[in-house]
Amino acid sequence: MSQSDRLTGEFAFIDWIRRQTASDVRVPIGIGDDTAAIRFTPGREVLVTTDMILDGVHFNSSSTPARLIGRKALAVNLSDIAAMAGVPVAAVVSVGLPDGFARTAAEDLYAGMRELADEFRVAIVGGDTNRSTSGVVICITLLGEATARGPVRRNGARPGDWIMATGTFGGSILGKHLNFTPRVREALLLAEKYDLHAMIDVSDGLAADLGHIVEESGCGAVLKAAAIPVGRMVGQIAGDESRLASAFYDGEDFELLFTLPPHDGQRLLAEKPLDVTVSRFGEITTGEGLILEWENGIRRPLEPRGYDHFRH
Amino acid sequence: MSQSDRLTGEFAFIDWIRRQTASDVRVPIGIGDDTAAIRFTPGREVLVTTDMILDGVHFNSSSTPARLIGRKALAVNLSDIAAMAGVPVAAVVSVGLPDGFARTAAEDLYAGMRELADEFRVAIVGGDTNRSTSGVVICITLLGEATARGPVRRNGARPGDWIMATGTFGGSILGKHLNFTPRVREALLLAEKYDLHAMIDVSDGLAADLGHIVEESGCGAVLKAAAIPVGRMVGQIAGDESRLASAFYDGEDFELLFTLPPHDGQRLLAEKPLDVTVSRFGEITTGEGLILEWENGIRRPLEPRGYDHFRH
Repeated sequence: MSQSDRLTGEFAFIDWIRRQTASDVRVPIGIGDDTAAIRFTPGREVLVTTDMILDGVHFNSSSTPARLIGRKALAVNLSDIAAMAGVPVAAVVSVGLPDGFARTAAEDLYAGMRELADEFRVAIVGGDTNRSTSGVVICITLLGEATARGPVRRNGARPGDWIMATGTFGGSILGKHLNFTPRVREALLLAEKYDLHAMIDVSDGLAADLGHIVEESGCGAVLKAAAIPVGRMVGQIAGDESRLASAFYDGEDFELLFTLPPHDGQRLLAEKPLDVTVSRFGEITTGEGLILEWENGIRRPLEPRGYDHFRH
Repeated sequence: MSQSDRLTGEFAFIDWIRRQTASDVRVPIGIGDDTAAIRFTPGREVLVTTDMILDGVHFNSSSTPARLIGRKALAVNLSDIAAMAGVPVAAVVSVGLPDGFARTAAEDLYAGMRELADEFRVAIVGGDTNRSTSGVVICITLLGEATARGPVRRNGARPGDWIMATGTFGGSILGKHLNFTPRVREALLLAEKYDLHAMIDVSDGLAADLGHIVEESGCGAVLKAAAIPVGRMVGQIAGDESRLASAFYDGEDFELLFTLPPHDGQRLLAEKPLDVTVSRFGEITTGEGLILEWENGIRRPLEPRGYDHFRH
């Protein structure tokens, strides 16, 4: 991070962040040295995830408020830590900003990150400010730690498990993809109270991400079409098939998708421990791939393909 | 990292890396889950650094071989871990690749990273592949751990310390900035055998980075013009002043700049434990800022400004 405090003619973004940052016992060395140093809880595995978001691909800096861009850059990483039922701890933030990017916009970027960082007790411990010859690029790496139970992986689903998820799916582009609240608290609570076998956050789309779970777990899944929790905003006048397609393939829902034994699933539905709705809509099977079952009993394979960044 | 395994129409870069990666006891969860998980040595501080390099700013993908771009992206991060006298452990790699970026070029990018990762035992544990609407962007975050002595910071320089450095300075643009070997081994050996008070890796330039040390340490420095280790390639027909300007301001030398008590400095010069040359060329003072002393005894303030990414 030697470039992090390079004074730029425009605005020393990371250096400015340093002055906004309170001390934190978990961070013996923060912004302002060659690296940061972090103290994690002894014996816990350190979780690490990174996401890069780019102008013209994940957002448009000409139309998306900078605060929402900064917020999303951290939110997608928090969602990944949530998917492991981990506790977020510290982030480093690299940015590429075009010549003439306004200082107020850079401050807004940071305000959006800071909003979520404060909410989830994430220390921003370092970064790198660069000139970009094209648009805005943000890359955040988030570190967290597992709880005593260890991380919830993708590969632990077992035949007979119920398939459940928080919230609803589809239509994220209408706004949710920019202002969602990552399900960190929900994941920790679920993992503490129920025997989660597998979990993932839905970013690529419900079908693609369930596809990841069954592929990594070496099993299959049957989904009940009528039970899929489709978002209310999704094409209210559209037919069932296009509404389901939106739920399966839109992506960027950032909800938790998980599997667990029926007994735990029943308890979860009865106890309702979360503020957000939780739905049951399928079952893990001994087969492979995804099957969609309609109310009339007809079953069809469901393609696990998701939204593809190279195809639009 | 939920996007890390999104299949792209072009090339699932991170997914492909996964298949190249051997298992590692330090990495209970590698590429292929929502986050990676890493086991660090209990009780050691975890070091974290990040650097983003961009097309048209740090390299030109049209003229720089992809292998060297990938190599540099990891090398600059290794240099930061070296500057703390830390041990590198694991990296996550985010890339933005333009439409039509050739698969062979992406593989070359990775080959360049892998070359250094293998040399310094760095596990590549995750990442994020994205489409870029402009050029190539690479952001690597490198995690390491401190040794039992703890990290060597920038802020520990004390009046009377000798100022020393590995290697030579200036003219890095002639090639060194792309193919340097980060001084990880040298830093560990120096920190083990000598009482290093402060250390930094020289990326912004000798003057700027010494400026960081004296500013963070609350002291000043006097440098002997005749003793500055100027690279042999630096303007051999140029005058002393322009050769020194190159050494002070070119930057991207990625050498270690450190301060230590005179007794330790003397031992270091006598014992010559490193393969690379080590020079002594100044002393930490009680003042502030940098002073350059010429052979005729004349002293002049030395501006600590370095290469500025926003000014070219």
